[in-house]
Amino acid sequence: MKVGIVGCGQLSRMLALAGWPMGFRFSFLADPDEPVRCIEGLGSVVRLDTTMTAGDVFSGLGNPDVITVERESVNVALLRQLKAFCPVYPDPEIVWAIQNRHREKTLVAGLGIPLSPWEVFREREPVQEAIARIGGLPVVIKSTEDGYDGHNQWIIDSSEQLEAFEKEREALLERKDWLQESATKGIHEWIVEKKIAFDREISVIGARTPDGDIAMYTSGENHHDKGILVHSVIPAPDLSEQLHNKARDYICRLLQETGYVGVLAVECFVAGNELLVNELAPRVHNSGHWTIDGAATSQFENHLRAIASLPLGNTAHQDGVVGMYNLLGQKHSDDSQAPDQLITKGTYLHWYNKTSRPGRKLGHLNILAENEEELSGSFESLRNLFPPSA
Amino acid sequence: MKVGIVGCGQLSRMLALAGWPMGFRFSFLADPDEPVRCIEGLGSVVRLDTTMTAGDVFSGLGNPDVITVERESVNVALLRQLKAFCPVYPDPEIVWAIQNRHREKTLVAGLGIPLSPWEVFREREPVQEAIARIGGLPVVIKSTEDGYDGHNQWIIDSSEQLEAFEKEREALLERKDWLQESATKGIHEWIVEKKIAFDREISVIGARTPDGDIAMYTSGENHHDKGILVHSVIPAPDLSEQLHNKARDYICRLLQETGYVGVLAVECFVAGNELLVNELAPRVHNSGHWTIDGAATSQFENHLRAIASLPLGNTAHQDGVVGMYNLLGQKHSDDSQAPDQLITKGTYLHWYNKTSRPGRKLGHLNILAENEEELSGSFESLRNLFPPSA
Repeated sequence: MKVGIVGCGQLSRMLALAGWPMGFRFSFLADPDEPVRCIEGLGSVVRLDTTMTAGDVFSGLGNPDVITVERESVNVALLRQLKAFCPVYPDPEIVWAIQNRHREKTLVAGLGIPLSPWEVFREREPVQEAIARIGGLPVVIKSTEDGYDGHNQWIIDSSEQLEAFEKEREALLERKDWLQESATKGIHEWIVEKKIAFDREISVIGARTPDGDIAMYTSGENHHDKGILVHSVIPAPDLSEQLHNKARDYICRLLQETGYVGVLAVECFVAGNELLVNELAPRVHNSGHWTIDGAATSQFENHLRAIASLPLGNTAHQDGVVGMYNLLGQKHSDDSQAPDQLITKGTYLHWYNKTSRPGRKLGHLNILAENEEELSGSFESLRNLFPPSA
Repeated sequence: MKVGIVGCGQLSRMLALAGWPMGFRFSFLADPDEPVRCIEGLGSVVRLDTTMTAGDVFSGLGNPDVITVERESVNVALLRQLKAFCPVYPDPEIVWAIQNRHREKTLVAGLGIPLSPWEVFREREPVQEAIARIGGLPVVIKSTEDGYDGHNQWIIDSSEQLEAFEKEREALLERKDWLQESATKGIHEWIVEKKIAFDREISVIGARTPDGDIAMYTSGENHHDKGILVHSVIPAPDLSEQLHNKARDYICRLLQETGYVGVLAVECFVAGNELLVNELAPRVHNSGHWTIDGAATSQFENHLRAIASLPLGNTAHQDGVVGMYNLLGQKHSDDSQAPDQLITKGTYLHWYNKTSRPGRKLGHLNILAENEEELSGSFESLRNLFPPSA
């Protein structure tokens, strides 16, 4: 089985490392300036340039049996053209939908899955009216595209913060270069959503094959710092059976109703007995990295099984509690020595071979613990050894 | 951490695939004619030639932090010289001891660990006397070196079979080329051991760090066909606690008393309440391949942790029963398509990318099952889809 992956980051790395044992071969499509250190040695790399046709890309990738993506920020037009040559999973249309928060929320709402109240506004449209329609401050404003790890997001608790946003918006609209840089390449568009007082964030990860087989992992609880995932705990502590089932129901509907193929991640807010979808990721996801050591089959292997039309593997998690701790860069450095000292009897190091820069995801540690108390102790030591913020 | 591995087979492949996620780098030392397809892409390869000094080998391997082996059949003199440049684990002296069945049995017996009664004989020494000393027929005769997967072994149940062996011995002694081919490079030597009516064969795998930390896996039961391992079942079904403890005691003493570093495998015969050591392997072992999917930490990762002086990982096995089924070549073919059709919800394919030839180990399948009955069913189907003999 030859798999072409669009993107050359750590998700591609972990996909390839999950596929090599099964005899899968990989090739990777890199953007013109994309670093490729994560996947060096794991397959050939094709560097995209504007002169390439889809046929050039397909043959450059070595005529793969299937093409997949490791990120949302991809050229969907190219993916659509690649479908003439081999299956592309997940389908370019679902990637396209999730690329844009407006389309994403429309999709989720259309399936009757609850979201925090939201409105969309464009260019110089008044935001105050939109805010009023969803019940007033506090709100969160997000650009509909190019938002990840807290980028292009504004938390608005007060009219002062709203004024500050308005100034930023005006500056942005006056800049001519931003639209070139942006994937939007058309108009400026934002989502404003009610900032809900949620208790916590959980995520649920599932996979679906072209035949419609579905497998789901146990929901985990995620902790963020400045918009970046710091750690996850699986199973999400004391999550009611009702909420576990809601999460399973949401991902199941999303997979089924969209005819999705591959791994899909859904981030949700828990507010009392309510479960609101925050966002989707049409790919393997950081909050599923625990599955490498903490589940019978990893999200990476299951993504490959799905796109290769093979039966999905058992998703049962290990006894006890599983944790995942992101290892974020502390400083700028071309050197990125794996922190072997973090390895203990119950911890498993995953290192991406990246150059270091502050806040960059350089690796993660999976932790198998007897109980939540033991896991909290591990997180505590890790925060000292490898702080979550630079 | 840079690891140099002597050998380029599937064990090197699986070691590298266990180390890549942790950010380990690999290089491999190949014999002049050794195939390298298993490890292609996983690190640079140095091809040994007679003009090379140990220093050439060390620098060719990229000045590794540690050197290890994936097979017993290695140039021990070279390993000894390499110790001047970096640690070599397991120590060349234990590899040297295990290379030769005479030295191996002397080592095991010296630790007071039971073996089947045995004698050694050389060249044209009369074998009848040795046989008489261990209690007469039936016996098994094995060359002290170059024996693996049933090669250079003779099962002697009758005087006719003994005569046949004597003819083979005479022919061998008259051949001038055999000693050049053989690792013995000196004299012909055989072990004769009492062929015991054992109930079954189990193996136990353990690891030790330079600091003396020890971790052991649950003993599994092994089934062979024509001297080649066909499948393993973990835990060994209905093995008494007493025998489990004996196996743990044996490997623990072997690891401790020899100051061993890395993974060691011990194959044992079970005869009633007796546990007799059959042979040792100073490396990761086929009967431990189940650990990739069936244990919290694989034997490959634990071997790397041990030789890198890192804490050993949890060796607990998965709930239920774990199985391993070897995928042996059916025919000669340069093509070796991974048999994806063997993948199911509870099975995990490991494919080595070798050319196929009859009886060759091309891959293995790990199986996670609820119980022994379910596992037997899986083995049964596998025997039809991928027969153990060509």
